Amino acid sequence: MEFSVEQIAQMLGGEVIGDKSAKISKLGKIEEAGSNAISFLANLKYESHLYTSEAGAVIVNKDFEPKQEFTTTLIKVDDAYTAFTSLLEEYQKALKSSKVGVESPSFIGENVTEGENIYRGAFSYIGSQSTLGDGVKIYPHVYIGEHVIIGENSTIEAGVKIYPGTIIGKNCVIAAGSVIGSDGFGFAPQMDGTYKTIPQLGNVIIEDNVNIGANTVIDCATLGSTIIKQGVKLDNLIQIAHNVEVGKNTVIAAQTGISGSTKIGENCMFGGQVGLAGHLKMADRTMLAAQAGVSKSNNKEGEVLMGAPAFNSMKFFKSYAAFRKLPETVERLSKLEQKINESK
Amino acid sequence: MEFSVEQIAQMLGGEVIGDKSAKISKLGKIEEAGSNAISFLANLKYESHLYTSEAGAVIVNKDFEPKQEFTTTLIKVDDAYTAFTSLLEEYQKALKSSKVGVESPSFIGENVTEGENIYRGAFSYIGSQSTLGDGVKIYPHVYIGEHVIIGENSTIEAGVKIYPGTIIGKNCVIAAGSVIGSDGFGFAPQMDGTYKTIPQLGNVIIEDNVNIGANTVIDCATLGSTIIKQGVKLDNLIQIAHNVEVGKNTVIAAQTGISGSTKIGENCMFGGQVGLAGHLKMADRTMLAAQAGVSKSNNKEGEVLMGAPAFNSMKFFKSYAAFRKLPETVERLSKLEQKINESK
Amino acid sequence: MEFSVEQIAQMLGGEVIGDKSAKISKLGKIEEAGSNAISFLANLKYESHLYTSEAGAVIVNKDFEPKQEFTTTLIKVDDAYTAFTSLLEEYQKALKSSKVGVESPSFIGENVTEGENIYRGAFSYIGSQSTLGDGVKIYPHVYIGEHVIIGENSTIEAGVKIYPGTIIGKNCVIAAGSVIGSDGFGFAPQMDGTYKTIPQLGNVIIEDNVNIGANTVIDCATLGSTIIKQGVKLDNLIQIAHNVEVGKNTVIAAQTGISGSTKIGENCMFGGQVGLAGHLKMADRTMLAAQAGVSKSNNKEGEVLMGAPAFNSMKFFKSYAAFRKLPETVERLSKLEQKINESK
Repeated sequence: MEFSVEQIAQMLGGEVIGDKSAKISKLGKIEEAGSNAISFLANLKYESHLYTSEAGAVIVNKDFEPKQEFTTTLIKVDDAYTAFTSLLEEYQKALKSSKVGVESPSFIGENVTEGENIYRGAFSYIGSQSTLGDGVKIYPHVYIGEHVIIGENSTIEAGVKIYPGTIIGKNCVIAAGSVIGSDGFGFAPQMDGTYKTIPQLGNVIIEDNVNIGANTVIDCATLGSTIIKQGVKLDNLIQIAHNVEVGKNTVIAAQTGISGSTKIGENCMFGGQVGLAGHLKMADRTMLAAQAGVSKSNNKEGEVLMGAPAFNSMKFFKSYAAFRKLPETVERLSKLEQKINESK
Repeated sequence: MEFSVEQIAQMLGGEVIGDKSAKISKLGKIEEAGSNAISFLANLKYESHLYTSEAGAVIVNKDFEPKQEFTTTLIKVDDAYTAFTSLLEEYQKALKSSKVGVESPSFIGENVTEGENIYRGAFSYIGSQSTLGDGVKIYPHVYIGEHVIIGENSTIEAGVKIYPGTIIGKNCVIAAGSVIGSDGFGFAPQMDGTYKTIPQLGNVIIEDNVNIGANTVIDCATLGSTIIKQGVKLDNLIQIAHNVEVGKNTVIAAQTGISGSTKIGENCMFGGQVGLAGHLKMADRTMLAAQAGVSKSNNKEGEVLMGAPAFNSMKFFKSYAAFRKLPETVERLSKLEQKINESK
Repeated sequence: MEFSVEQIAQMLGGEVIGDKSAKISKLGKIEEAGSNAISFLANLKYESHLYTSEAGAVIVNKDFEPKQEFTTTLIKVDDAYTAFTSLLEEYQKALKSSKVGVESPSFIGENVTEGENIYRGAFSYIGSQSTLGDGVKIYPHVYIGEHVIIGENSTIEAGVKIYPGTIIGKNCVIAAGSVIGSDGFGFAPQMDGTYKTIPQLGNVIIEDNVNIGANTVIDCATLGSTIIKQGVKLDNLIQIAHNVEVGKNTVIAAQTGISGSTKIGENCMFGGQVGLAGHLKMADRTMLAAQAGVSKSNNKEGEVLMGAPAFNSMKFFKSYAAFRKLPETVERLSKLEQKINESK
């Protein structure tokens, strides 16, 4: 893909100051972009980069007035950041939509239903009785068990493993190496110290517009379903145990773990490396600071929790500030004790 | 698979109250089960669900006396929970045993020894000189290096990677995406600030009846073996470093990490996101609370540790309760200081 | 591979005491090695094992004088540990270099450039326009997207997934199941509570001599590159977010997570399960204790940080010691208050 600066300016409804004929094939950071790349300047903190930029063109706000000389070409638009983002999106769409068709060898079981414009990469495996909606992309080394349903325009990236019975909605993206629907961790202790496996017969349901990062694991339910509601965003290396529910539009950062049967509300935000015990409820808009360890349910919407065991973050910060000064505080106490004892 | 209510009642030695001819093909939760599913009621806390249940049948204890009308069919047995669990087990056995045979394409090296009733999925790779016992199931995208031994009736799920020289016992289950036998993390610092790789020549030995979750990693030993003893249950995304030993029937929750050469006793229980330093020993039945950070050996059997660095959990709870009130405590101290100073 | 004791002694420049003709095919620990294995004794703490060892030969320091009878053969060298390590290295090199050639089936896209002495395992996938240098080894189930460059003598182990545009240097090793170049976790909140995906158009650059453990994830940059500098050693299950830079020869233990745009200096050492917030800078030689939670930049070279939020480790230890005694300290305060009140 290659466009002239003039073509891009037209797409963005912008005005060109400089060389309209320069050819652009990439997007880049203002300080790194070469002559075939376009960049942007929205925050004037980075203005100095403009004057040394080698970019083929730089998108700026229309009220921007340069204070020094520069060699790059400007495209002036109403909002440089928004204009650049829309370029990014178009670029990525163009890149990704190119994948259509079936590479060889790939494996497809009996009675698989396939929509139109599907991509199935080499070494992908589709179990029998499964359904792939229109526009679904299955990258190489993906395993899809039996009776799986994947909604239209969802993308399953390289090496994802999806166990039998999983249901995935529309417009989802699951990044490489994630595992969906593995057995929940359920073992019943026996009199002789051994453990007996509790059969895990449920499944995982992932609703529409969900993004799941790389090497994340979502276990199936013991009975019923582990449910990831619409619009949820999960980062990499996350653990979601059996029978968990994650509410609509909740965002969870990397390496967080949620134990069995815990229910997370809508629009929650969890930092990285957070841990939640089992059978808890988190109210809508609960925020958990990174590394929080949550052992109790939270019924207060919008509450911010921190620490392990976690409690209100403002209180945590006060306690932690006092923890940092604790040796001095003990010293003060000792002096006071001495004073009192001497005064007796 | 489909059974009549009467057939199931006979299997369980139970008595039917209602429609003996209803057809059952699934198991479900009492509040979700449809007319083709069977459920159970053991805990009377959930009794109200019975009166609205649409299940084809519900297993109840024989002394259960309904207090309202209902439309489902009852099967009365001695112990509803146990009866339902045995149904679950039979159901899962039936599902899983169906996988036998070899799918194409698959790769098999020279001099591989294979038992009977094996399943090898498409795109599975078996390295030369390896041995698969009777009833072993190798799912798609599994990689098995050279000189690996897998005992009878073990199941290696989709995309597991097993390095050369690994030995796995009988009746083990390794979930999707796990890595067994990768190099230990050993690097010797050099004078110029770089690191030299220390060759990792050992292997991993996994004994009988071990379950390993998804995307878990077990490194090989530098020399000798990293050993997972019989009956151990490991959850998802766990890190087991080189030369670790995990004792019989120990259970470890997700995202826990154990550093090099640490020896874990028998029947220990570790919560999620626990971390252990290297070269430690944990006595039998040591319990570690979630997110504990263990920096010292524990010689006391049955000890419960918490916190980071971890110590006795009862003491931790007391210290943490005091931590939460620490700002008020400092305030009390300040007031007391003021009082003393004023009184002088 | 099989050598006589005499051949090994010649390689090491050592003197044989005992049976020169014994055949050696393995390396092992002194207490476990059988008659076909060679071992070593460097630390006299383990001397007693020598007298019961069944090893075919044991390497010892030339000034070693046995105090009891033994049956094994000795090889006396200047430095037993160094000699044994060099044997280990030769052994591993011999094992690994044996992999050359292309197994079937494998997938290779258009315009792929391949050097000499390459190994491409069965079910490996090389995207179009990619380049593999001389001596590169691609194990089974590896996915390499389009426009990827892999430098000479780098090894990509089973099931690694490398996204399009990734650049990897020379002599790197990436262990099984790792994911390089997945999308960064970037979502823009919308007025209706949903999130819009921010396109991730950058890549990952891994320089020379980098080792990456199993099931680790490195996200691509939003724009520009996520950069892992030369000589970096990453353990298993690590999360590296978009636009992170890890400086030369930095070593990071398992399950650590680094948030977006954070820059790590050279020769840093991070323990396991460490977490770093986004947009931070860590000075050269920063050391982070296991499970540290870092929320602020550190500008002090060689600083050691601990705790969450992390601060100077010596201060942390003092505060934590006081935390353990906190209930007693509060008790002391209460008694003092009582005393004062009574004395009034």
